[in-house]
Amino acid sequence: MSAPGSGGGVFAEQGLFVCFEGGEGAGKSTQSRLLAEWLEQQGLTVLLTFEPGDTGVGKELRRIVLDPATGELSARTEALIYAADKAEHVDHVVLPALARGEVVITDRYVDSALAYQGAGRTLEVSEVEQVNRWATGDLRPHVTVVLDLEPQAGLGRFTERDRIEGQSLEFHQRVRQGFLRLAGADPDHYLVLDARQPVDAIAAAIRARVAPLLEQR
Amino acid sequence: MSAPGSGGGVFAEQGLFVCFEGGEGAGKSTQSRLLAEWLEQQGLTVLLTFEPGDTGVGKELRRIVLDPATGELSARTEALIYAADKAEHVDHVVLPALARGEVVITDRYVDSALAYQGAGRTLEVSEVEQVNRWATGDLRPHVTVVLDLEPQAGLGRFTERDRIEGQSLEFHQRVRQGFLRLAGADPDHYLVLDARQPVDAIAAAIRARVAPLLEQR
Repeated sequence: MSAPGSGGGVFAEQGLFVCFEGGEGAGKSTQSRLLAEWLEQQGLTVLLTFEPGDTGVGKELRRIVLDPATGELSARTEALIYAADKAEHVDHVVLPALARGEVVITDRYVDSALAYQGAGRTLEVSEVEQVNRWATGDLRPHVTVVLDLEPQAGLGRFTERDRIEGQSLEFHQRVRQGFLRLAGADPDHYLVLDARQPVDAIAAAIRARVAPLLEQR
Repeated sequence: MSAPGSGGGVFAEQGLFVCFEGGEGAGKSTQSRLLAEWLEQQGLTVLLTFEPGDTGVGKELRRIVLDPATGELSARTEALIYAADKAEHVDHVVLPALARGEVVITDRYVDSALAYQGAGRTLEVSEVEQVNRWATGDLRPHVTVVLDLEPQAGLGRFTERDRIEGQSLEFHQRVRQGFLRLAGADPDHYLVLDARQPVDAIAAAIRARVAPLLEQR
């Protein structure tokens, strides 16, 4: 297990690994889909995936952590369930696609654990990071796009909220700051965009950041 | 997160925490029940519990890891699901009972993770330990009773096997050696007994080991 904050990590030598992160309602699924469409137009094979829940066991774990009927969980329980979903996702979905040379775009990854379970639940972020680095074999994205939005704006889009969306505004504000801290500490691997911009402007900025990565590969 | 093998750990100041460990069919549930009955005859309040699955979310996690229908899981996924069960069990069952001054007897605890997911699945034991120490807040039992049995003898008792019982004989042999290594490294906190002895002889040896711990508390 590598030390947290070591700036290390494993970057896939084949394929390209792009993550979208941010709070609820910031447009992650729209933008990841637009990026995937553009990449496919360039003739690339793209796998569009998400966390939690894009594996067989992941679906069951997702239901447990998001269903309001689950009720109160220990913060560490929740963090470990999310980490289990990540371990399965990396081993059975992300790594095989990267090994085939594909572009993998995931809606949420390790940073969501650090922001929601670390900053949000106020667990020690370095400890949540150790667990998640172990869960994922320390696999890092080549670039993470953070769609930044104040929580009031994003949550306003939902009328029915799941266990996580239903947390307090202060929780979601800590989550937002968590994402911005991660991006600020490693600017070479992050693109932070104001999610209030027009969809097309955001999509263009993402394409501009990803295009040089394609040429390098 | 404390370093593995540091010999550290947190021991509850109130209550008494006793664990039973060992392979399948070694008699853990029989012996934990006999110990509980004897302690209750001494006028103590005893909580008899088990892992995985003695909490609401734990029941669902147990079903996932033990149901043969789950199929193949990444070794880290399995380890993290077990760790999530432990986090919930410690926070919501074990610690509250210890805080009330009760004797908590659990059928399986962290050592099962180290033996099954570490030695059995051949994950790095020190890394599985780090994750489990974090999951449990490094809470350690005052004594762990290992009921030692060669796997052929224990597994012969089952006709229908779950996902773990159905692993190879070599897997179960690594598990057995895993338990013996843990006990050998910390003899002050372990009692290893040959599970082929008569039930009454084993029960008496366990009572003899636990009795002085009651006087100290």
